Amino acid sequence: MGRGELASREDVTTAEELGERIARERWVLLTGGRDAGVMAAANRGAKRVPDSLTIGVLPARAPTDVSAHVDVAILTGLGDARNAVNVLSSDVVVICGAGGPGTASEAALALKAERFLILLNPTPEAAAFFRSLDASVAIASSAEHVIELIRQRGPSF
Amino acid sequence: MGRGELASREDVTTAEELGERIARERWVLLTGGRDAGVMAAANRGAKRVPDSLTIGVLPARAPTDVSAHVDVAILTGLGDARNAVNVLSSDVVVICGAGGPGTASEAALALKAERFLILLNPTPEAAAFFRSLDASVAIASSAEHVIELIRQRGPSF
Amino acid sequence: MGRGELASREDVTTAEELGERIARERWVLLTGGRDAGVMAAANRGAKRVPDSLTIGVLPARAPTDVSAHVDVAILTGLGDARNAVNVLSSDVVVICGAGGPGTASEAALALKAERFLILLNPTPEAAAFFRSLDASVAIASSAEHVIELIRQRGPSF
Amino acid sequence: MGRGELASREDVTTAEELGERIARERWVLLTGGRDAGVMAAANRGAKRVPDSLTIGVLPARAPTDVSAHVDVAILTGLGDARNAVNVLSSDVVVICGAGGPGTASEAALALKAERFLILLNPTPEAAAFFRSLDASVAIASSAEHVIELIRQRGPSF
Repeated sequence: MGRGELASREDVTTAEELGERIARERWVLLTGGRDAGVMAAANRGAKRVPDSLTIGVLPARAPTDVSAHVDVAILTGLGDARNAVNVLSSDVVVICGAGGPGTASEAALALKAERFLILLNPTPEAAAFFRSLDASVAIASSAEHVIELIRQRGPSF
Repeated sequence: MGRGELASREDVTTAEELGERIARERWVLLTGGRDAGVMAAANRGAKRVPDSLTIGVLPARAPTDVSAHVDVAILTGLGDARNAVNVLSSDVVVICGAGGPGTASEAALALKAERFLILLNPTPEAAAFFRSLDASVAIASSAEHVIELIRQRGPSF
Repeated sequence: MGRGELASREDVTTAEELGERIARERWVLLTGGRDAGVMAAANRGAKRVPDSLTIGVLPARAPTDVSAHVDVAILTGLGDARNAVNVLSSDVVVICGAGGPGTASEAALALKAERFLILLNPTPEAAAFFRSLDASVAIASSAEHVIELIRQRGPSF
Repeated sequence: MGRGELASREDVTTAEELGERIARERWVLLTGGRDAGVMAAANRGAKRVPDSLTIGVLPARAPTDVSAHVDVAILTGLGDARNAVNVLSSDVVVICGAGGPGTASEAALALKAERFLILLNPTPEAAAFFRSLDASVAIASSAEHVIELIRQRGPSF
């Protein structure tokens, strides 16, 4: 999960690497599916890997603004309420970079739903806040680090 | 789409055949994902085909009552409101057999969303009602017939 | 519940009378809230009664297209998935006139949620279909009749 | 908006005062509607004022766990996705005290929906984080202060 149009160049680069690494692990990549920022980059990275699978859970009801690298588009028509669906449908939720309000809601909903939450390169304010809500929130400094953290969680995924 | 626990033996058999035929066409099968009735049967049929892909869009937030033949479970936590998501995420909506109220809501939402709706072995009352709402509703008498109807719609899918 | 833009003149007149009668009973009127057809008419009727209360549960996220006679607008942003919310939040669901697909989905969801469902002046096809789903569906021929049917259900409301 | 079962005594007291002050202004009080913590307290305070109106937008589909001081219960059946509905249906969103993950998602969704967001007695981490997302977030130190901040925003409400 991460910013769309306002994502920084660095966050987009990291998201692309993360998408590729997730696909190499044979894990399914689920994103918000839009053709922008962190979502588009993660899907692009994943689809470089043969036989990868990318799911996009979109806010809109029409199939516009869908990343070309999404294999299966779930068109919810729910607007921001779809953020709850993204999070519930994920085993692990990774927030990639400095998110905006939408991304913040996904991080919060992930904690509410008791999902394993990893903040990858968060702002200091985000790291401090989400850790104050739940001390088990993990902080990662690279895409590789995210993969290690998930592997350590072990066979539940 | 179709009944869960209350599905008839005949509707379950037809759903299994339909799932298999959909998978052989290399189309993605999307169902309500529960481990019951028409949904479970369609997924079971599809997974007999190598490299098939089955998506389940579930009403619950917990991964219980998911068909073992669902590859990707979208846990919506939305209850019956998830019926709108099922329909929007489908190119074609097939109602398999004599549905209950939940299935009826999906048929109605499919017309609202202007999806191509096929009723496979409907009750006379269902056929008459949905045709009164929209004369373009298709009626099919076998799984094979459903596939033909979809192929005739052509390249938009 | 009933049609928006495509409602017939007769259905609009009946909806206005029904709204007024509901308000006179001191019941809360809940509609889809849009400024069209049966919804707008029912709210207009209810607000002729002093101290009436009208709730609109809207599909959109923006406060446009809201009937001026809605006291409290619930902006869901859920699109058609809001139909499930309308129905769950109602003790009795009345379908006013010949509904389209959206209205049909609300009738079906009302049965799914085990709400008391009354069809007021339905088409013959709608009456036959919903009765085939659930024999307890009530058919009414006037706004006055609806009120009697609800009163007969007694103190649970 | 605020915590349910885990709300502190102080936050509950403040919520009760806030509910009463909101009702005295003749504003409609909208909460998550559950019979717990900040929600229950705010509704209790509001209903001390004659002719007040309290709306509860609930996550469940069944009318259990509803505050006795909610006038109109919107039963969404949406689980945590209902947090998006709460926020869209509010002109102003007030977070009362140290919220948990659910409350944090509401604050984030309020910023996403461009609602006026007031944090009343937030933790330092919450204040710093939400201000880093949007510098226009207001911080209040008492229920009275919240009312002043809303009045200053003027005639749009």
